[in-house]
Amino acid sequence: MLDRVRVILCETTHPGNIGGAARALKTMGLSRLWLVAPTCFPHPEADARSTNARDVLAQARVCGSLAEALEGTVLACALTARGRDLSHPVLMPRDAAPFMLAQAVAGDVALVFGREASGLTREQVGLCQRIVHIPANLDYSSLNLAAAVQIMAYELRVASEEGGVPPPKICEPASFEEIEAFYRHLEEVMRATRFLDPRKPRRLLQRMRRLFTRARLEKEEVSLLRGFLKTMQVQAEGVAPGPESAHGRAVVD
Amino acid sequence: MLDRVRVILCETTHPGNIGGAARALKTMGLSRLWLVAPTCFPHPEADARSTNARDVLAQARVCGSLAEALEGTVLACALTARGRDLSHPVLMPRDAAPFMLAQAVAGDVALVFGREASGLTREQVGLCQRIVHIPANLDYSSLNLAAAVQIMAYELRVASEEGGVPPPKICEPASFEEIEAFYRHLEEVMRATRFLDPRKPRRLLQRMRRLFTRARLEKEEVSLLRGFLKTMQVQAEGVAPGPESAHGRAVVD
Repeated sequence: MLDRVRVILCETTHPGNIGGAARALKTMGLSRLWLVAPTCFPHPEADARSTNARDVLAQARVCGSLAEALEGTVLACALTARGRDLSHPVLMPRDAAPFMLAQAVAGDVALVFGREASGLTREQVGLCQRIVHIPANLDYSSLNLAAAVQIMAYELRVASEEGGVPPPKICEPASFEEIEAFYRHLEEVMRATRFLDPRKPRRLLQRMRRLFTRARLEKEEVSLLRGFLKTMQVQAEGVAPGPESAHGRAVVD
Repeated sequence: MLDRVRVILCETTHPGNIGGAARALKTMGLSRLWLVAPTCFPHPEADARSTNARDVLAQARVCGSLAEALEGTVLACALTARGRDLSHPVLMPRDAAPFMLAQAVAGDVALVFGREASGLTREQVGLCQRIVHIPANLDYSSLNLAAAVQIMAYELRVASEEGGVPPPKICEPASFEEIEAFYRHLEEVMRATRFLDPRKPRRLLQRMRRLFTRARLEKEEVSLLRGFLKTMQVQAEGVAPGPESAHGRAVVD
């Protein structure tokens, strides 16, 4: 659905911002840039700021008017920071992105950005069906144009990935039995070294459980920790390790 | 809580990106910029790109190392696009932002960005407790530095405005310095007991960092663990604890 999104920059003054916008789009998997009456385009500064997104610049469509750029779209969202008298429904970027992608089933959808210094004109906003307002510092809400494009492209990417987010890679978690054996081994060494006060052992052990539970121990980590415990046990006491630790897989790394 | 967020740029090459980052922060209501060994700063290009966020540049702190910039923080999140072997828990920006603001109740939190061309080094990531991964186009994931700062600042602003998120109850988290002192102490005991193979120490220590990083150690837990290390150190070796552990608060429970 990201292929159905047109990003339209109106009357952009600084060619560097066009390059920055192209890069912002490409990093998020968008590619369709439309330029309405840009002041300077093509321009070496646009190329420089786009870095490896020159293909997006090369394919950009240049138009004379916003109306022309909107031909064939089923939805256009105007980016504007200012409140307006006769305004449209206002969406936050987070809500606008899934809304746009849902509408894109029916055809192209557009995000429309105004001139750097002055934003979109009232007439330009009038050609759109929604306003998108990026939340900002009330005392200084002047986002750079390419930065605003980056935020919207990011929200569209997140919305497009939702539902299909790949689960984080995890290593093999330790089993219940392995973790319990580790706790027993830990207690054994804590007792042997007299670090554990035999009169009130519970709280210390509970704290250790709490810590390692948060970490969600992996198999290899349990082996590692038990190897360390065994080393200390043998050295500190000069005693043969107890039955529990004798079964511990102390092979590490 | 936005005032508790440090944005740390490591070894930034292009001063324009520093200016762009300052502007990105200010538009979202953040202001605390830290620069670790920037190539050129101050610089007219940084001023130009910051437009009206020169106050953020003027107040930026310049440091020699990331460790210095992280002093006093309770959480550091590393921005990185690459998968890593022994990696930390990975958060999406949307989840990272409310998590950071919740942790900020206890102290400063940091977002750490690497050099433009190469990102953060493995060592720099090792000083952080979480990785944040901005979703991107798999074929071209190279966000501009200031654009990445803009996305994170935007997510923090949205999270701060959501306002209703009740912070999860957390105990007092250990500070960066306390956690690093614990790792040094652990290494010391592992070396003393010869559990650590001096020919290949790195992987074992990295695994330990990874485990305890996931757990997000609390102050009291660090004290507890160091108390245990000290007990074993004294018993196993019969030696006086080293200077590091001598300063350790071994008082537990």
